[in-house]
Amino acid sequence: MPVTVGVIGGGQLARMMIPPATNLGVTLRVLAENEGSPADLAASAVGDYRNLEEVLRFARGVDVVTFDHEHVPQEVLRELVAEGIAVRPGPDALLYAQDKLAMRQRLTELGIPVPVWARVESVGQLDEFLAENRGAAVVKTPRGGYDGKGVRVVRSGSEVADWFENGALLVEELVDFRRELAQSIARRPSGEVMLWPVVESVQRDGVCAEVIAPAPKSAGRLADVAEDIARTIAVGLGVTGVLAVELFETTDDRLLVNELAMRPHNTGHWSIDGSTTSQFEQHLRAVLDLPLGATGCRDTWAVMVNILGGPVGQPLHERYEAALADFPMAKIHNYQKESRPGRKVGHVTVTGDNLDDVAYDARGAAARFE
Amino acid sequence: MPVTVGVIGGGQLARMMIPPATNLGVTLRVLAENEGSPADLAASAVGDYRNLEEVLRFARGVDVVTFDHEHVPQEVLRELVAEGIAVRPGPDALLYAQDKLAMRQRLTELGIPVPVWARVESVGQLDEFLAENRGAAVVKTPRGGYDGKGVRVVRSGSEVADWFENGALLVEELVDFRRELAQSIARRPSGEVMLWPVVESVQRDGVCAEVIAPAPKSAGRLADVAEDIARTIAVGLGVTGVLAVELFETTDDRLLVNELAMRPHNTGHWSIDGSTTSQFEQHLRAVLDLPLGATGCRDTWAVMVNILGGPVGQPLHERYEAALADFPMAKIHNYQKESRPGRKVGHVTVTGDNLDDVAYDARGAAARFE
Repeated sequence: MPVTVGVIGGGQLARMMIPPATNLGVTLRVLAENEGSPADLAASAVGDYRNLEEVLRFARGVDVVTFDHEHVPQEVLRELVAEGIAVRPGPDALLYAQDKLAMRQRLTELGIPVPVWARVESVGQLDEFLAENRGAAVVKTPRGGYDGKGVRVVRSGSEVADWFENGALLVEELVDFRRELAQSIARRPSGEVMLWPVVESVQRDGVCAEVIAPAPKSAGRLADVAEDIARTIAVGLGVTGVLAVELFETTDDRLLVNELAMRPHNTGHWSIDGSTTSQFEQHLRAVLDLPLGATGCRDTWAVMVNILGGPVGQPLHERYEAALADFPMAKIHNYQKESRPGRKVGHVTVTGDNLDDVAYDARGAAARFE
Repeated sequence: MPVTVGVIGGGQLARMMIPPATNLGVTLRVLAENEGSPADLAASAVGDYRNLEEVLRFARGVDVVTFDHEHVPQEVLRELVAEGIAVRPGPDALLYAQDKLAMRQRLTELGIPVPVWARVESVGQLDEFLAENRGAAVVKTPRGGYDGKGVRVVRSGSEVADWFENGALLVEELVDFRRELAQSIARRPSGEVMLWPVVESVQRDGVCAEVIAPAPKSAGRLADVAEDIARTIAVGLGVTGVLAVELFETTDDRLLVNELAMRPHNTGHWSIDGSTTSQFEQHLRAVLDLPLGATGCRDTWAVMVNILGGPVGQPLHERYEAALADFPMAKIHNYQKESRPGRKVGHVTVTGDNLDDVAYDARGAAARFE
């Protein structure tokens, strides 16, 4: 059995793989961008994920390669595969998490419900789309955007005229949505899939602020539709590991796919403390092609609140005395990242039977750090 | 706030501190006995815990020193304290986990119920004790015994004549007990204590085989008495960190203290998956003098079953396909220790509402590895 997993990228997602790797006896190796990364404890190399030689040297020492982020270039990934290295998810799948235009095209072919969209190559084409879609739309750069970056709401093509310098853009209707949901699924190379309950994701300024698991009032049709969508995408794109599907629940009761992530995702952090199998353990099991674990909720509700860095830049542990004393039920996750305004530096999860109490405690504990 | 914890000893207890240290952003350093220890990932030094210079060098680089085992000599511990290093638990407390005669003496002074016992220095004194106690007793070497080693049931002093070569022995009545229980507690230097529910510990061949949390039919008087005993010991001995108190529940409904451990203990492993705060997280919080976490059960029942090495010596991960597929609810903990007959190489915990189902699954999953 392969037991050494190599993770490209040393951020908090790689860091949060350390606990389940320790429990399962999986050897974790991390290719970090620099010294002192959040995943420092498991970092076996420091290097540039865009440099084929550095990535190859790292990958040759592990049984399977997986990712902390989606930014490893296709050329690099394809060279690893050509060398016979197991890359999970593989480049054919990962493409759709790297390129939003390719993703929209492929999901449309699979019959997955998505917002009205178009590929536009000029201000004129964008203005045409706006005229046909109530005069406002969301423009996205196909590559490199995250947490609200590379995304803008526009009412005139001229607002993003300079964005066309790097090629075509994706434009999408402004969806009338009631709330945002996320459905995570894990898939093994041999085919088995397991899904967590669909969750509600609350965004602030384009960044995930809070997640409620399961999404309130989601039992029944909503959960079934979300599961069907995630399963169709995971199988259709040949995803291995964890896939997170961000969804809009529209005001007319449809679910539309917003974004895809092919790795553990912020909307799944609740599962560390709230599910029998966390997304980080499941990702390791999936990429090692091991049987997947149970994904039910351990309590009726789990609420996860992100801790964002403030202007003061104080390390989280300086607030532990107050936060831990007032919230003994709170599970604190500290990414040991330097605090910068708006940067995700940790999260808090609370679970329990009463949603109001759980949310109050999770928000209260997180607020102690801000 | 101090955030670097140094653990002396690189066994599975140090290993199981890695996940909560990662979550809380506590920097863990381990002084391991050799390369490739279970706590290898966090090992910052390899050295002999009996060598003052090696221990001092390690201890100077951390904020607080704690332990994977009780074997660090008092002379070494007292030198660390003399240098101003925070040692938790401190040598004055740890003495009672190192020396069973000192422990029996001190607990008796504190009014804690213990088996009838005596300090014996010769075969003649031992025979006298046997004559007064129904002709059979348990003899223990005061130091160094564990998992049934250094412990023998005797009917004549001559059976352990050679044991007197190293000094006095502890002799105890053979207790008529219905079952064995264990009560764990954590205490901060500033005084706060938190207790987990009392658990039942099932021993086989002198080794803990299985733990049921909470102990069946323990609610009420039994739980109250167990808590009082543990609290009195923790405060009376000035313990900091986790203290595990092993108890006999006698056939005439008394609780008698069997052994003490001043560190996370096998009878508390269930808490990783079964309690809001695991004994490993709580130990780190306690030795850092941080507020303690909630200690309730996350489900009605948790059953932990040890995985003991068999004659084949097969690494655990070679059995993952079968174990994980059949028991998706099981949480596997692999210590990455070389398998030897009878050696604790891992454990399995299952939690849920029905004790029969939970025990069946935990035993079934553990059996896949034997």
